[in-house]
Amino acid sequence: MLRIYGVYKSRATRTFWLAGELGLAFEHVPVIQAYKLADPMAPGARINTRSPEYLAVNPMGAIPAIDDDGLKLHESMAINLYLARKAGGPLAPKDLAEDALMTQWSFFAVAEIEANALKISMSNAQGRLSTEAGQAEAEVAARLLKRPLAVLESHFADNDYAVGGRFTVADINLAEVVRYGQPYQPLMDAHPHIAAWLKRCHDRPAFKAMWQTRLDEQE
Amino acid sequence: MLRIYGVYKSRATRTFWLAGELGLAFEHVPVIQAYKLADPMAPGARINTRSPEYLAVNPMGAIPAIDDDGLKLHESMAINLYLARKAGGPLAPKDLAEDALMTQWSFFAVAEIEANALKISMSNAQGRLSTEAGQAEAEVAARLLKRPLAVLESHFADNDYAVGGRFTVADINLAEVVRYGQPYQPLMDAHPHIAAWLKRCHDRPAFKAMWQTRLDEQE
Repeated sequence: MLRIYGVYKSRATRTFWLAGELGLAFEHVPVIQAYKLADPMAPGARINTRSPEYLAVNPMGAIPAIDDDGLKLHESMAINLYLARKAGGPLAPKDLAEDALMTQWSFFAVAEIEANALKISMSNAQGRLSTEAGQAEAEVAARLLKRPLAVLESHFADNDYAVGGRFTVADINLAEVVRYGQPYQPLMDAHPHIAAWLKRCHDRPAFKAMWQTRLDEQE
Repeated sequence: MLRIYGVYKSRATRTFWLAGELGLAFEHVPVIQAYKLADPMAPGARINTRSPEYLAVNPMGAIPAIDDDGLKLHESMAINLYLARKAGGPLAPKDLAEDALMTQWSFFAVAEIEANALKISMSNAQGRLSTEAGQAEAEVAARLLKRPLAVLESHFADNDYAVGGRFTVADINLAEVVRYGQPYQPLMDAHPHIAAWLKRCHDRPAFKAMWQTRLDEQE
């Protein structure tokens, strides 16, 4: 049995989206980030990223993590690559070369894009992005994203999807990171091919269903 | 034919070490970091990370990258996972679960360890680590590494290697990142199981051969 740990307002969206695309049955364990609770260590506090029972699943105390018939995995990108490979089909790599490229784009997302894109996402979530200071911060983040986004823009000028001419797990892994930068409109305006690809990804029924569950999630 | 782009004083060490372990024949293209050259764009400048012919291989302009019979790959961790999977044998995953764990530890290295460990490595390379300011910086980096290194320390208290009870590509990918923190002795003293595992990795003939080539490298 597949168990997915994490809430929908977290990096776990990546895995929920993929599970939806693959039509996987899973048990959802809504582990919440400890920082969102007043006293995560209190007796009776809901299960969170500092709960001993969760640290036994992922000692880093980060979400998401999975337990797939006893195989415990953390690191969202690795989880998604594993679930796609195991399921097979169009979202999975069809050979070693595709696997290499899907792995490459997933590392690219984490190493070259995520930290700066997250600054925009957090600024937006905290209501700071609309302020002058928030716009200035976002502009700095956008400048640091210039090179990796130029690489992606050029890739999506020639390709509808990341790998193999079709929607795959690599698009989910990339799109879930690029989405963090989406609230800063100048970034999207400067990269129309990225914006069009992100829209193609977000138009998928499995993304929309995941997003609706996220919007409905009680904290 | 396999071509590896990059110099030995760079992240390319990961790939050179793996190629040595696997006994792969390859052509070495010594692309150097542009920042090490006075004028990387000058006509006749040696091939570097801003040279148009290299940007055609890796548009991010980072090293290493490979070209394996026409498959161009960047992101060192993805390159290593690909080369190991292709070669098979003890360094490669033997099934989907091992592949998932090797991929997990590689993302863990990049996402949780690399940035802070690199601060120590750079401080050391620039001769700052022995100063009071350098020690204070290293102490901050070490504090930020506390959680991921506790995870690794606990793993290596129970396991000689990262995955499958044997030396694999996951050890190379992890060790090459943990090595960046090695010059700060208190970090190693606080994590004796990590230090012992790192020594096991560094005692391997293929690591020693790679390191000697690095020491001999002319810039």
